Amino acid sequence: MAAQQLAKDQQVLQSLLQVGVGLSAVPDRQKMLEMILCEARTLTRAEAGSLYVLDRDRLKFVATQNDKVGTPELTRHLLGKETPLTCDSLAGFVAFSKEPKNIANSYELPSGTPFRVNRDFEAATGYRSESILGIPLTCPDGRCIGVLELVNRLDESGATVAFPEDDCGGILSLGSMAAVTIQNARLQEQLKQAHLDTIIRLSVAAEFRDDDTADHVRRISHVSSLVAKAMDLPPEQVELIEWASPMHDIGKIGIPDSVLTKRGPLTPQERRVSEKHTMIGGEILADPQNDLHRVAREIALTHHERWDGSGYPRKLKGTDIPIEGRIVALADVFDSLVSKRCYKEPYPIDVGAYIIRRQEDRGFDPEVLEAFFRAFDEIVVPYAVLPHCSPAQL
Amino acid sequence: MAAQQLAKDQQVLQSLLQVGVGLSAVPDRQKMLEMILCEARTLTRAEAGSLYVLDRDRLKFVATQNDKVGTPELTRHLLGKETPLTCDSLAGFVAFSKEPKNIANSYELPSGTPFRVNRDFEAATGYRSESILGIPLTCPDGRCIGVLELVNRLDESGATVAFPEDDCGGILSLGSMAAVTIQNARLQEQLKQAHLDTIIRLSVAAEFRDDDTADHVRRISHVSSLVAKAMDLPPEQVELIEWASPMHDIGKIGIPDSVLTKRGPLTPQERRVSEKHTMIGGEILADPQNDLHRVAREIALTHHERWDGSGYPRKLKGTDIPIEGRIVALADVFDSLVSKRCYKEPYPIDVGAYIIRRQEDRGFDPEVLEAFFRAFDEIVVPYAVLPHCSPAQL
Repeated sequence: MAAQQLAKDQQVLQSLLQVGVGLSAVPDRQKMLEMILCEARTLTRAEAGSLYVLDRDRLKFVATQNDKVGTPELTRHLLGKETPLTCDSLAGFVAFSKEPKNIANSYELPSGTPFRVNRDFEAATGYRSESILGIPLTCPDGRCIGVLELVNRLDESGATVAFPEDDCGGILSLGSMAAVTIQNARLQEQLKQAHLDTIIRLSVAAEFRDDDTADHVRRISHVSSLVAKAMDLPPEQVELIEWASPMHDIGKIGIPDSVLTKRGPLTPQERRVSEKHTMIGGEILADPQNDLHRVAREIALTHHERWDGSGYPRKLKGTDIPIEGRIVALADVFDSLVSKRCYKEPYPIDVGAYIIRRQEDRGFDPEVLEAFFRAFDEIVVPYAVLPHCSPAQL
Repeated sequence: MAAQQLAKDQQVLQSLLQVGVGLSAVPDRQKMLEMILCEARTLTRAEAGSLYVLDRDRLKFVATQNDKVGTPELTRHLLGKETPLTCDSLAGFVAFSKEPKNIANSYELPSGTPFRVNRDFEAATGYRSESILGIPLTCPDGRCIGVLELVNRLDESGATVAFPEDDCGGILSLGSMAAVTIQNARLQEQLKQAHLDTIIRLSVAAEFRDDDTADHVRRISHVSSLVAKAMDLPPEQVELIEWASPMHDIGKIGIPDSVLTKRGPLTPQERRVSEKHTMIGGEILADPQNDLHRVAREIALTHHERWDGSGYPRKLKGTDIPIEGRIVALADVFDSLVSKRCYKEPYPIDVGAYIIRRQEDRGFDPEVLEAFFRAFDEIVVPYAVLPHCSPAQL
């Protein structure tokens, strides 16, 4: 008995350690959720299981695994589905009551059971959920942020048996760990989202006196990151480009109204003043303390350089221009072509693409250009709302 | 034997669970480090212990506990001290080799031991470190980010004994958990720092055409958060004010050069244009998606309102002005008084404080004003570098 208990405790320990160490190190939230579910199933010998996360007053399926039906088949049925916090499902009841619920056989619920078991999935697949263990994912402050549902514990012969009543110590701890980890990942996402929001808002503000709009800033970010992705740059670099590119024209802040808002062509003298926005951007982002500002500074300084060396401010040529600057240069020109400016009407999207293609030999890095056209279908999505870039033209 | 092993395993399990669940939920990094150390000592029955975190090529003491010498005494001796990654200390050796090191008796090291034990602390306190267990804090990617050092394991009679050789499973896992948690907390701090950096840079940029400097923006944040703290606002709100206040004048971006950079008094018409910067700030920060931008919007809109209703743009009065706006209003006026502007010389700091005090009855919320003077000693610190606010005057 003691030896059996020991073996079990060691398994619990092993599983929890693996989760505890591994969880927070998993950069991808979906992978993290899959790992939590997988560990929980191993720990309880459950044939199937699902993880729900609370989103306002509803539970969302975020991960689901089933050794019998097959996870892809299952995912197709369940992922993205929602269930309310009511007694119409076991998960809803567990989230609502914040208590674990162990059901020996869901087809033989005692009369007066305060919830029902949702059979929609069973009707669709023929899979029978007999024993079910529902675990609330509870944060240390008592908030329930989701539910872990384990289905059909198998004994050594492969027969479905009830989950043991005394198993809850290990699995509840796993639930708490999962809760804290999900919560942390969420906070991190919120922090990053808030930062991106600040960048967009303040970058848009910087172009307040210009023609450019919030949409321009967002589209530059969209186009640049898609091109970077199509070039197979590492995900971290793609994200840096996505975040840093909105700040490309931040230096316009230092250009006088008389030049920035002038209608009609600029004199050579005014042009020199206007071109200073790249250097001013470089000053605003001088002495970068992190990668984001380092990349933003490079982009601000180099997004008007050209592949053939005919750009400004430093007439850099070819790969002397940082890749981030080469990418944003193309995104910026493309977006300008198909946008209305005070000095020109917008081009239709296919004309814009044609002009870009034609400049290949001198303006743009040929590899950036190829990546742009590889990603073109995804790139044009936000342009579909512009009146002269109607879906028909896309 | 099995029963003993069981009890021990359960203790390990319990300890690790507590750490795993608790760690990531501790908002304060220092408390988190103390908790890791405390759990590790309980787990290994160590009388004392220290936690070092790697900072470039040096190990920094970040937490230390000692049941005999007393933690405060110990902290005074050790905290903030550094040790290099060399064989001149056990911690340095462990961080360098990334292997745990178990020393039965540090006074009887076998000849040829590749490191020495640093005795500086012992010389100062008389405490003898006999048995020592050094554990590298290793992230899942293999990087060592610190060292956990446990000192003098006590048996039931209170005698110092060696740490068991086979104990490393549990304590190594705890080390890994600690590594991941420290790393996560660090990433989170970096994310927040990068965001604050973006806010400061882009807010400064927004005032590029104005007299205001990066220092003005930083000082407003400094003064406002100190006043908020002195008013006993909750720490989260103090932090929001610290972060949001740099954006108070972001709307100046929309004011034409002719008004913004005019030397000499504004005409009534120009004044109306200038005052629009509050509303433009509100537009830039419209539809806030998070607390930071919500507070920033309120501050942008209300930092020129006055307690007696004589401010702009909405002539709000008293507590109809959000507390954040009332605080930044005072910080902004004070900073303007003691700064040089294109239309005026700066006042010495005591004259600035006098003018603020005199306006009490109409301009400012009396409670904000009292808090300002309670925090005055700390508030004036960054002003000491201004030539007309020399330390003698402070």
